[in-house]
Amino acid sequence: MSINILKRVKVTSKFWEKYRKLVVKEVLPYQWKVMNDEADISIAEDPQNNGQDKNSHAIANLKIAAGKMTGHHYGFPFQDTDVYKWLEAAAYSFSYKNNPDLKKITDSLVDLIEEAQDEDGYLSTFFQIDAPERKFKRLQQSHELYTMGHYIEAGVAYYESTGNKKALTIATKMADCINKNFGLGEGKIPGYDGHPEIELALVRLYEVTQDSKYLKLSRYFLKQRGTNPEFFDKQIESDGIERDIINNMRDFPREYYQAAEPIKDQKTADGHAVRVVYLCTGMAYVARYTGDKELLDACNRLWNDIVKRRMYITGGIGSTTTGESFTYDYDLPNDTIYGETCASVGMAFFAKQMLNIKAKGEYADILEKELFNGALSGMSLDGKHFFYVNPLEADPEASRKNPGKSHVLTHRADWFGCACCPANLARLITSIDKYIYTLDGDTILSHQFIANRAEFENGISIVQNNNYPWDGDIHYVIKDPKNISFRLGIRIPSWSKNNINIVLNGKKVILEVEDGFVYLDIEKDTQIDVDLDMSVKFMQSSNRVSQNINKLAVQRGPIIYAAEEVDNDGPLWNFQIETKASPVCKYEDQLLSGVETISVKAIKLKIDSVDSPLYRELDCDTKKMETLLKLVPYYSWANRAEGQMMVWINR
Amino acid sequence: MSINILKRVKVTSKFWEKYRKLVVKEVLPYQWKVMNDEADISIAEDPQNNGQDKNSHAIANLKIAAGKMTGHHYGFPFQDTDVYKWLEAAAYSFSYKNNPDLKKITDSLVDLIEEAQDEDGYLSTFFQIDAPERKFKRLQQSHELYTMGHYIEAGVAYYESTGNKKALTIATKMADCINKNFGLGEGKIPGYDGHPEIELALVRLYEVTQDSKYLKLSRYFLKQRGTNPEFFDKQIESDGIERDIINNMRDFPREYYQAAEPIKDQKTADGHAVRVVYLCTGMAYVARYTGDKELLDACNRLWNDIVKRRMYITGGIGSTTTGESFTYDYDLPNDTIYGETCASVGMAFFAKQMLNIKAKGEYADILEKELFNGALSGMSLDGKHFFYVNPLEADPEASRKNPGKSHVLTHRADWFGCACCPANLARLITSIDKYIYTLDGDTILSHQFIANRAEFENGISIVQNNNYPWDGDIHYVIKDPKNISFRLGIRIPSWSKNNINIVLNGKKVILEVEDGFVYLDIEKDTQIDVDLDMSVKFMQSSNRVSQNINKLAVQRGPIIYAAEEVDNDGPLWNFQIETKASPVCKYEDQLLSGVETISVKAIKLKIDSVDSPLYRELDCDTKKMETLLKLVPYYSWANRAEGQMMVWINR
Repeated sequence: MSINILKRVKVTSKFWEKYRKLVVKEVLPYQWKVMNDEADISIAEDPQNNGQDKNSHAIANLKIAAGKMTGHHYGFPFQDTDVYKWLEAAAYSFSYKNNPDLKKITDSLVDLIEEAQDEDGYLSTFFQIDAPERKFKRLQQSHELYTMGHYIEAGVAYYESTGNKKALTIATKMADCINKNFGLGEGKIPGYDGHPEIELALVRLYEVTQDSKYLKLSRYFLKQRGTNPEFFDKQIESDGIERDIINNMRDFPREYYQAAEPIKDQKTADGHAVRVVYLCTGMAYVARYTGDKELLDACNRLWNDIVKRRMYITGGIGSTTTGESFTYDYDLPNDTIYGETCASVGMAFFAKQMLNIKAKGEYADILEKELFNGALSGMSLDGKHFFYVNPLEADPEASRKNPGKSHVLTHRADWFGCACCPANLARLITSIDKYIYTLDGDTILSHQFIANRAEFENGISIVQNNNYPWDGDIHYVIKDPKNISFRLGIRIPSWSKNNINIVLNGKKVILEVEDGFVYLDIEKDTQIDVDLDMSVKFMQSSNRVSQNINKLAVQRGPIIYAAEEVDNDGPLWNFQIETKASPVCKYEDQLLSGVETISVKAIKLKIDSVDSPLYRELDCDTKKMETLLKLVPYYSWANRAEGQMMVWINR
Repeated sequence: MSINILKRVKVTSKFWEKYRKLVVKEVLPYQWKVMNDEADISIAEDPQNNGQDKNSHAIANLKIAAGKMTGHHYGFPFQDTDVYKWLEAAAYSFSYKNNPDLKKITDSLVDLIEEAQDEDGYLSTFFQIDAPERKFKRLQQSHELYTMGHYIEAGVAYYESTGNKKALTIATKMADCINKNFGLGEGKIPGYDGHPEIELALVRLYEVTQDSKYLKLSRYFLKQRGTNPEFFDKQIESDGIERDIINNMRDFPREYYQAAEPIKDQKTADGHAVRVVYLCTGMAYVARYTGDKELLDACNRLWNDIVKRRMYITGGIGSTTTGESFTYDYDLPNDTIYGETCASVGMAFFAKQMLNIKAKGEYADILEKELFNGALSGMSLDGKHFFYVNPLEADPEASRKNPGKSHVLTHRADWFGCACCPANLARLITSIDKYIYTLDGDTILSHQFIANRAEFENGISIVQNNNYPWDGDIHYVIKDPKNISFRLGIRIPSWSKNNINIVLNGKKVILEVEDGFVYLDIEKDTQIDVDLDMSVKFMQSSNRVSQNINKLAVQRGPIIYAAEEVDNDGPLWNFQIETKASPVCKYEDQLLSGVETISVKAIKLKIDSVDSPLYRELDCDTKKMETLLKLVPYYSWANRAEGQMMVWINR
């Protein structure tokens, strides 16, 4: 328990305020229209469509379940979650934007959800409307607990932000329903959901209600998972083998669902990437409150496997479109990657929970990597277009004409048949204030350089000013009117560890870095200035990664850069960066809503004529020319003319 | 017409004789057992299985159709073609191996086929046994003309090699049946087969029968194709949309079948690669006999698109497993390639026909490339294992764990559910004597350096001795007892064009190279010695190919080389070839049935520790060591311990 309790955090970061306003102004109204089938959208023509057309029908499903409309369910069995994630995002937005019009909508949405909920707490409109006899009968595919988990998160958030008790009651009723039906007791289902989510949601509910049965139930789901690997198969046999709720899903391997063996025996991060990180978030959450060693070990094991062997430099995870899954250690193809936006968002959740367990800079480094790169790239600068897949190398021609890359869009889409990503990113952005500090005992960890004003219950306030991520000078003004002693931990990002300058009340100090943090004992008003190393870094990957041999990526601060064809005459693969020359950085106010661009010296091979032979003897005198390669932040790519993009560039 | 008519060509090449004996000793008996369901095989576990188990049932299908057995058809609708291609291969083998036991089998096989044939000439056991009412009703998928085309090829070959008239009669009855049913006349089907093959087969039949109706019918199929792009869809609608003969095939794009537009309008080689090259072979064949300009233009256009923009350096074609298809110009991924063995075999057919139209060295170069690389790699050195897919970069771990590469086997399989490749390669090898000379007017083109003794009807004989492909000294001894004047064209391979030495009757001569050939006027006994450039070449690809930037391939003579993990400590991607040092060549008699190996100087990056970070700042002092990289002929890879393989290596 922390002796410091946060009262409020106001994000003042220019960079993030822009996005947070965008979510309120564009994303939430737009998604609301979409869910009400009032938006003029076109669904992405990619393999993730799954045959959905332009209607979301998500609100209509709830209305039908509530008896206010007639008709059938439409969309995925987890269509409800679009609504819940949207509600959660809206709930967080009230913390920085008073919005009575929106609140009217969200209040009546909560009313509608309550009406749709069954007496016993059950809520999953697909089953309520079209398959009541199959409730909890095909958990591998049903997403029922996943769906209710998402409501629970939303309900807790809405209650916390608005005080709406009904929102919380719906959540506890759901959890009670699940508690009644699941477990190892007689007459209960000894199973778990095909898609982890309920586990982390139940701990959120425990936090707000302090009712330990929810924590216990969450732990049950985590410990039970994979102990009876035939559980799903047996359910499917009883439910009718051919009656898949989602086509062919019964043929997916058990690893896809992290259900092939108990979690304690799982050595690597396998299967569907979003499932893995949601599961890990739940495990870390439960481990934090219960001290469960087995779960903690699993968290550490899977964290290391993901971060040290299976993560792209942008934070993207999931190396294959088949099953939206991880593949194997060091397999990181840049052009056939999946790198789902939701997986990066989920990785941010996981990192946040790991920080709650241990003050380790690496967790905050990865959180930052996701926030500024892998997750953020999921949304366009106008807030109305989204990436499901986030490649590190893309070529519109390849995406159109090589079916192995057809899942890689080179422009963000209006919407998706399976629309998990847009609202997931929205809820991360509107709750970004919750990702800046981690509190433990007498320590306040300031691990994200997102400018803010934080007020604590005990009167302490911390103002952090900066122009991050473009500038590296971070200024803290701490007020401690009651002279309370506390430790302030400031993260030293791994990319700045060799070049850091800290000034305490005007005087330079040398501090030891402990596991990625420097610590200062504070007991009065204090000023701290930190200078981070914002030089341009040429990055290489481990040479265990076959795909990046002889290539480099460009990073500055937390931002990973990319080359786009719109700035550089293609093909981009004919550029070779000259690392000896100094790159030129420039803040361009009018470009991509304001970005720092980097120009690096490069050699460009003159493109071979179409008449030259496809293969020829090596000639050492291929024409080359000196040129500049202009790079923009990865998250901002594909906001201009469609073209090639590359993160890993030849050197 | 040629004034010189070949009487016989005896292949004496040590390299090819080994394969030709292997086919007689191992491949034909083995495949016969497989087709009779008597072999103990395991079908490849790759996506091409299509759910077939270890039974071929191919002979049983014919017996059922012949009324000698009861039961249902089993296997693909084109299962019969395994038998026909096998019969064709056996027929060719009689030209070099008298084999009464085999002939007993093939004679009675011809009897069986005759019994299976319907009165009207129709023969496709799937339809005869299980769907007689659907004959010719779903040509997109039925493979009926494809199947009969393969019989026609076999029947003609068998007739030519053994004089068996029954074999020819079956073929003419088939062709007559097709002629009766197809065409633009009233009551005829204005369509064509989903899989080209009948076109080239009909010209073979025309050649032996001199009946021009077969040539005319072939031309009809070629000219009609794609003129009514909705033809297949309409048939499917009448036949019942859901009743696919091969699952989901109705959803394949029209380009897959080269049926989206008339051939004359097709600008690029699109769709299923085998279909494309079979179609092209038929077009070249018809163009040769009819002079049809439209078809000839199409041949040239598609030849150029394939050879100049869509062919791997090994001769492999088909850049994607999806639809076993071409993708787009310069898209040549080495690890997700398809490169079907049958496509390389078909490309050899196409090249052979193009040579008949024009004496152009490029056609013979490509023919040679296929023979020694892309096609030959389809079979193991023991003649009992086969590749369907021929990658240029492979890694067993990737094939097992990245679903995007699961089609790439890293060991040859016993057999395939769709077993088109093994017999296709066998018939190419047993007929290789037909690929050495091309005759036109008074010219004899000697375009392949496959040692042989050729006798012509007019008394001329040509003996070509060499130890090709390992040595480049080619010796011709020509006897011309009747002092007939003729031109001998000898191909100068493109890889030797800058370094060639020709000695005529002991005297060095300088000859002009005309379109890849030198010509000598002969009218008496003559000796010619040609010295080809057998130096090791480091090859680069056009820098329009993104996949091969900063990489090189190693070629010596016609042979493309590959590095295998069994010879070099992996990972292979950490080797960088030093092109300044001279490679060392060595003939190793005991290795891989005897191969010339090449060792090149290379720098090897020390592999990064698993504990080192996945991404780090560029360090210019990564540990490197000097080493040798050993290379073996590409066709011989995967005959030893399973491991990584690479053709394009970092430089």
